[in-house]
Amino acid sequence: MKIALAQFNPTIGDFDYNIARMVSLSHKAMEAGCDLVAFPELAVCGYPPLDLLERREFVEDNLQAMERLISRVKGIAVLCGYVAKNINGPGKPIHNTAILFEDGKVLARVYKRLLPSYDIFDETRYFEPGSKSVPVSFNGLLLGITICEDIWNDADLFPEHSYPVNPVHELAEMGTDIFITINASPFDTEKASHRYHILRHHATKYHRPFLYVNAVGGQDCVIFDGGSMAVDPAGRLIARAKDFSEDLVTIDTDGMKGEMHPVSRSREEAVVKALKLGLRDYTSRCGLNEVVLGLSGGVDSSLTAVIAAQALGPEGVLGVLMPSPYTSRQSIEDAEALVQNLGIRSVTLPISNIFDAYLERLKVVFSAREPDVAEENIQARIRGNLLMALSNKFGYLVLSTGNKTELAVGYCTLYGDLSGGFALISDLPKTMVYEVARYINSEREIIPERILTKPPSAELRPGQRDQDDLPPYDLLDDILRRYLEQNVSPDQIIAEGFDPEIVYRTVHMVDRSEYKRHQAPLGPRVTSRAFGYGRRYPIAHGYQKE
Amino acid sequence: MKIALAQFNPTIGDFDYNIARMVSLSHKAMEAGCDLVAFPELAVCGYPPLDLLERREFVEDNLQAMERLISRVKGIAVLCGYVAKNINGPGKPIHNTAILFEDGKVLARVYKRLLPSYDIFDETRYFEPGSKSVPVSFNGLLLGITICEDIWNDADLFPEHSYPVNPVHELAEMGTDIFITINASPFDTEKASHRYHILRHHATKYHRPFLYVNAVGGQDCVIFDGGSMAVDPAGRLIARAKDFSEDLVTIDTDGMKGEMHPVSRSREEAVVKALKLGLRDYTSRCGLNEVVLGLSGGVDSSLTAVIAAQALGPEGVLGVLMPSPYTSRQSIEDAEALVQNLGIRSVTLPISNIFDAYLERLKVVFSAREPDVAEENIQARIRGNLLMALSNKFGYLVLSTGNKTELAVGYCTLYGDLSGGFALISDLPKTMVYEVARYINSEREIIPERILTKPPSAELRPGQRDQDDLPPYDLLDDILRRYLEQNVSPDQIIAEGFDPEIVYRTVHMVDRSEYKRHQAPLGPRVTSRAFGYGRRYPIAHGYQKE
Repeated sequence: MKIALAQFNPTIGDFDYNIARMVSLSHKAMEAGCDLVAFPELAVCGYPPLDLLERREFVEDNLQAMERLISRVKGIAVLCGYVAKNINGPGKPIHNTAILFEDGKVLARVYKRLLPSYDIFDETRYFEPGSKSVPVSFNGLLLGITICEDIWNDADLFPEHSYPVNPVHELAEMGTDIFITINASPFDTEKASHRYHILRHHATKYHRPFLYVNAVGGQDCVIFDGGSMAVDPAGRLIARAKDFSEDLVTIDTDGMKGEMHPVSRSREEAVVKALKLGLRDYTSRCGLNEVVLGLSGGVDSSLTAVIAAQALGPEGVLGVLMPSPYTSRQSIEDAEALVQNLGIRSVTLPISNIFDAYLERLKVVFSAREPDVAEENIQARIRGNLLMALSNKFGYLVLSTGNKTELAVGYCTLYGDLSGGFALISDLPKTMVYEVARYINSEREIIPERILTKPPSAELRPGQRDQDDLPPYDLLDDILRRYLEQNVSPDQIIAEGFDPEIVYRTVHMVDRSEYKRHQAPLGPRVTSRAFGYGRRYPIAHGYQKE
Repeated sequence: MKIALAQFNPTIGDFDYNIARMVSLSHKAMEAGCDLVAFPELAVCGYPPLDLLERREFVEDNLQAMERLISRVKGIAVLCGYVAKNINGPGKPIHNTAILFEDGKVLARVYKRLLPSYDIFDETRYFEPGSKSVPVSFNGLLLGITICEDIWNDADLFPEHSYPVNPVHELAEMGTDIFITINASPFDTEKASHRYHILRHHATKYHRPFLYVNAVGGQDCVIFDGGSMAVDPAGRLIARAKDFSEDLVTIDTDGMKGEMHPVSRSREEAVVKALKLGLRDYTSRCGLNEVVLGLSGGVDSSLTAVIAAQALGPEGVLGVLMPSPYTSRQSIEDAEALVQNLGIRSVTLPISNIFDAYLERLKVVFSAREPDVAEENIQARIRGNLLMALSNKFGYLVLSTGNKTELAVGYCTLYGDLSGGFALISDLPKTMVYEVARYINSEREIIPERILTKPPSAELRPGQRDQDDLPPYDLLDDILRRYLEQNVSPDQIIAEGFDPEIVYRTVHMVDRSEYKRHQAPLGPRVTSRAFGYGRRYPIAHGYQKE
């Protein structure tokens, strides 16, 4: 049997587009001689539709689209995801469903059993889980069909497993010949190797081939990276789709042969591709095609500009230099050199006059108080306002340029540098920003070298340097990764050898800036745990360690 | 038997405070001759702790606090909520638990079975549900103990019920003498009557008394309104605690007699109390005690100022008048009169010079374009920045003053009037704002009458009126309630008799402004469905009706 994994980028709720694209990919698979083409989880409606799933008209439109797809694809069997109604009793009104059909006939419906409810996933909010797993007979073979999370539970791999059932094991027991799983599995820098690890585990444990089709595309803060694959019963990778773009790979299950398409060779390459995909899909789905961002001459705004220019073309990017009296000559030169290197448009809007107008207006109320963070934030907010004015006037999307480290410790200004519709590098720790910037420069100097070597500064007061306000970034990112991504307690981090004073200070900075993150723009996730939708902390609370 | 319902306001994660307060309320109940005192759901750690529940140290601290409470209360039995570990097998690592203990001995642990996973609730994200319900023998009676959602499933009351099990029914079948349920049930304007309705239903259906203790307090966007109560087997209300404040009521289950404490007599009174409680708890738990807000002379900022002055005292409120050339003389007079009436501090900071500085700076890039929303938003953002400057300099919390209708249709400026830490009236539709303002004025004129009668205007351009930009508010709120709170489809709203053009226009305005709400400050929920944490829509998507 020949099976195609159709790694597809659906748009949430654009049913006509999704169906048309799936019809066309089905024809492509048919032309390649395939018996079956598999599309990702919820391919008909896109993933994750979130509370659109609570709207009956959305579910109905999805059902009608599903009917259209069934009637329009003939000559090849199709496996794909959609939303089915729960007609079997109490519980949530819908199922996350895989459907197998051929020539107008539905061969099977499989309901997702393990519904992820952690991090960015809220599937128990919407879906009723399926209650059993039965292989489906197709072309003389028993297919063990599962959906995404269904395969992420195995006592060997996850000793602290969160689900009482293991659909893969049940399907194996019932004589499955070939496992095939449809997914909408989000990217993080470790995910591709995790996926291969678990597929290899299942394949070798049950001595069956395992086929895996993933979605691709950027949906708000989530990037689906594709990388669909197949492993043989010995756990060898026999087919692989590209990462970060639509693709179609075929597998001949008789000879256990498939196509191997190229994927990213480094973490940095994957991150750049992820951010480009996330930005392109976000802008196009919001109906926008140009972005504006502030260029400070620092590494964060420079990296953001590079990725935007690569994603949208230099003509789609406007860089704005907004110097103040605290801006160094060097910063302006570096920003101007970057503009030259990228070939993007730029404009310079000095902020001193506006800043003076604010200070003049506030003089009476501020009276004799020393300048402090209030004056620093006014500068950041003027810059945010100028970018928003350009956005409102010309319809640009404002890109905010902050990194994850700043956002974690609150080293950023609400309504200032946190202004924007998309925070492109907001899940990149500062150390990763430098690594990715070096990768960008690996073939030729795109980001002026001085930007990568000078000490970082917000330039909001004379002589300011990040290192005067914060612990060194290497150390800080090390602590933050433990605290935020691995959920390690402050006491345990200290036990792992870190300075107690710095750990507690870092943790307090994180805890105290929850209110800023609450109002921060969304940005694409690249680590195993990002801020935004997947992190839900109370703002006002009384919990404090130490 | 005599039972006290201790309606308590815990602080999330402040275990020492919570325990001390519960010890003191237990003593009070003991002095009143009670055999048992009942505290709300998760009283030990506060509700909802959200992702703090993923931190092992938080769960451990909660367990240690639970031990301290057990060792410190003697002479009365205690029923209360805390987080217990799941030691029984796979699944989520913790249970939402009710514990009954007396004189150092644990008599029962009951795990919540129905875990709400909708709107603001994410309990399946954290908790493993309990698997059975068994009455607990205490003082010769069988207590049927449940936790909050456990009682919200009954085929008679909820024909489309979402859960396959009904703990109340199971407990009744097993001979329960008295039902007692511990809760953290959030306020909305219809909730109190819903609660009584369901208690009465259960009590009369099973011919048993039903006792209900609720939490009280404001936790970010959620207000717990208290209103604990007891109904006898005939469904009569025999005990009731106050709403919106801590309280303790006792019930004698032999004679079916209890205390009746006063509660709000109107929806408007309840809303005012809810907002005051929400603001007081938010500020105190953030360590703040003063607020600043812009006073435009309109009804929204006026109502916000009144409630803030009532909640924090007039000395805790600074009103800022920020007139522009488009501000009418009347608006300034009205704002000044309000300041006088409330006795709050005020300062006037005209924005024209700053506005001119922006226009001057942007002249070259804006070139000959006509003034539009870009210029309007600059004014709103200058005002937001001035308030934030005062916040940064003096440590005030900025109150934003927008209402739910504006937020729904995006008639508001990101980083402008949407600036602030707490959006006090952001879940009040414009029509409710007027109703509550009239209630405020019912005894004496606090809000100058002219504010309630003049046509609303943002005053961002000459002669601007809301009614030129939006459908009439009565009509708009009617459509929005259907679309947002009742999830009615646009087509169905039209079928209910509304003008198709206005319905589609309204729905488009709502759908297109999701990105603004994503970055809006949180505010207390008063309707059955608010923006913020309980509403989760994709920003970039392709779903559009019509």
